[in-house]
Amino acid sequence: MRGVVMHTAGDVRVEDREDPQILEPTDAIVRLTATCICGSDLWPYRGVEPADHQVMGHEYVGVVEETGAAVKNVQVGDFVVGSFVISDNTCEICRAGFQSKCVHAEFVAQTIGTQAEKARIPHADGTLVATPGRPDADLVPSLLAASDVLGTGWFAADGAQAGPGKTVAVVGDGAVGLMAVLAAKELGAERIIAMSRHPERQRLARSFGATDIVAERGDEGVARIKELTGGLGAHSVVEAVGTQESFMQAVGATRGGGHLGYVGVNYDVTIPGIELFFAGIHTLGGPAPVRRYLPDLIRRVWDREIDPGTVFDLTLPLEEAAEGYRAMDERRATKVLLTL
Amino acid sequence: MRGVVMHTAGDVRVEDREDPQILEPTDAIVRLTATCICGSDLWPYRGVEPADHQVMGHEYVGVVEETGAAVKNVQVGDFVVGSFVISDNTCEICRAGFQSKCVHAEFVAQTIGTQAEKARIPHADGTLVATPGRPDADLVPSLLAASDVLGTGWFAADGAQAGPGKTVAVVGDGAVGLMAVLAAKELGAERIIAMSRHPERQRLARSFGATDIVAERGDEGVARIKELTGGLGAHSVVEAVGTQESFMQAVGATRGGGHLGYVGVNYDVTIPGIELFFAGIHTLGGPAPVRRYLPDLIRRVWDREIDPGTVFDLTLPLEEAAEGYRAMDERRATKVLLTL
Repeated sequence: MRGVVMHTAGDVRVEDREDPQILEPTDAIVRLTATCICGSDLWPYRGVEPADHQVMGHEYVGVVEETGAAVKNVQVGDFVVGSFVISDNTCEICRAGFQSKCVHAEFVAQTIGTQAEKARIPHADGTLVATPGRPDADLVPSLLAASDVLGTGWFAADGAQAGPGKTVAVVGDGAVGLMAVLAAKELGAERIIAMSRHPERQRLARSFGATDIVAERGDEGVARIKELTGGLGAHSVVEAVGTQESFMQAVGATRGGGHLGYVGVNYDVTIPGIELFFAGIHTLGGPAPVRRYLPDLIRRVWDREIDPGTVFDLTLPLEEAAEGYRAMDERRATKVLLTL
Repeated sequence: MRGVVMHTAGDVRVEDREDPQILEPTDAIVRLTATCICGSDLWPYRGVEPADHQVMGHEYVGVVEETGAAVKNVQVGDFVVGSFVISDNTCEICRAGFQSKCVHAEFVAQTIGTQAEKARIPHADGTLVATPGRPDADLVPSLLAASDVLGTGWFAADGAQAGPGKTVAVVGDGAVGLMAVLAAKELGAERIIAMSRHPERQRLARSFGATDIVAERGDEGVARIKELTGGLGAHSVVEAVGTQESFMQAVGATRGGGHLGYVGVNYDVTIPGIELFFAGIHTLGGPAPVRRYLPDLIRRVWDREIDPGTVFDLTLPLEEAAEGYRAMDERRATKVLLTL
């Protein structure tokens, strides 16, 4: 099969890779319908994380082609959406809703690589969720978004306790930040402040439900959020960038007793304990337990209540993945969908 | 009046200080019945924080001696317990239960200094809580504990979501850690693991409700907590030490999706963002909003449901405060009560 391999930073190629095989009775082989490039794929692309002939991709939708003998919840022929973290969905941690910390957790990104024609998905019963039927073509991008970027933004907004009566500030106007805006709106937030200085992303943020835009960053961004919230800060803040500045901006923008949801930090971020302490806030972070949200997100997409697929602003065939990486790296695209 | 002044690190004296006066109509003057020395007073004592002729003390119970014209909730003659952070208890942050982040928040420690015969308490209506009557003498230590160390331990345990069915690990066997053990028990936790290697503190921890003791620290301590929890970590972890090692021990001891409550970090603590991220946990930290808990804690003490006053293992007259500091510094005492 064809699949993406990142030879080294900046060198993305589409090559022949071996067809995946069922290795464990709990595996399924999925023939992918669509996949995409994640903001986190830019870390190795930019050399911030190592890349040495690394398979890439962790977002995926497709049709089950083969199942191991123990798989019961999905059948050959089912259209499925999967999380970017493998989970059994039965252990104590999964049952508490933190499937990304499952005792069998495994990152799809590091070993499987779904920027490819097919993928072997371990713990298929716990990882994949079947849609009610074969989706209309226009639903595919939104279902694909649920696999990570929507699920992650949703987790961040939920973790920040976005809801009725709340003012939510979203730090970051990438795909995850935009999805957090959408999630905050769906969760009933009263006011949603998107922090962005790119006109096109501001427009997208408004389309997903942002009521206010703040262009300032760092301490100035914090001051602006305080101004907009009677000096108190936002009830709920989503951090969806992952740099030192953005993290501390998010901490500063959260009111005392408020909630910060963060869904990615790079290796250089160090949090001064005393600043976090005196902020007096709740935090929830980590790889999102997307699996927890998938049934609900699939239903909302299926019923056309939400249209997160509009976050994809460039669609390319898998063979042109390298151009997709370039477009995202140069910020010519927010998020790139790869067709198969 | 007489009161404690820390001239410089290690140099604590009891001196004549000016009697406090009503400055604002919302002030009250309290004649103190008892006060105490806090673990946090050891930071300047040890030179970790600056001290230059600093008034000391932030825990207090006593009798209202005078009130400003605007004070309505407490009367002259009332026996009161106050929080170590001034709060109006009416602003939006207070109403959300985070009185330690009140828009009028002020630390008693830095400006008032309750290791003294009297104290001026600003925002008396929002800061002080009257007891149902004059307490029996044996209740005074427990009421004093509510002022900070019990309230803080309670906040940490509550923030860590200690409750029925939960395994709670408490990092730190100082007074706050011990009070967190008591709080976890009162909140209904199933299993309470106290991390301590001091036999006397272990005994105290068991007396407050600890079911297990772990003597190991750092990575070994984390490994032991995992062993005791089926490899998962504790549902709820309280951090009540505030060093780099103890903070990361607490992070490591918390299961994915679990809750960490932390109630003090020193200025040297820096949290690696990536470790906190991949832990996938909830955190809540900050100066405890003791005021939120005071009515409930006073009732529990008054009804003799809890006896947190046993955390004081040395009682001295105010004039001997210097010896109290030495005893705590040398770990000869867990917590020192000063009588007036």
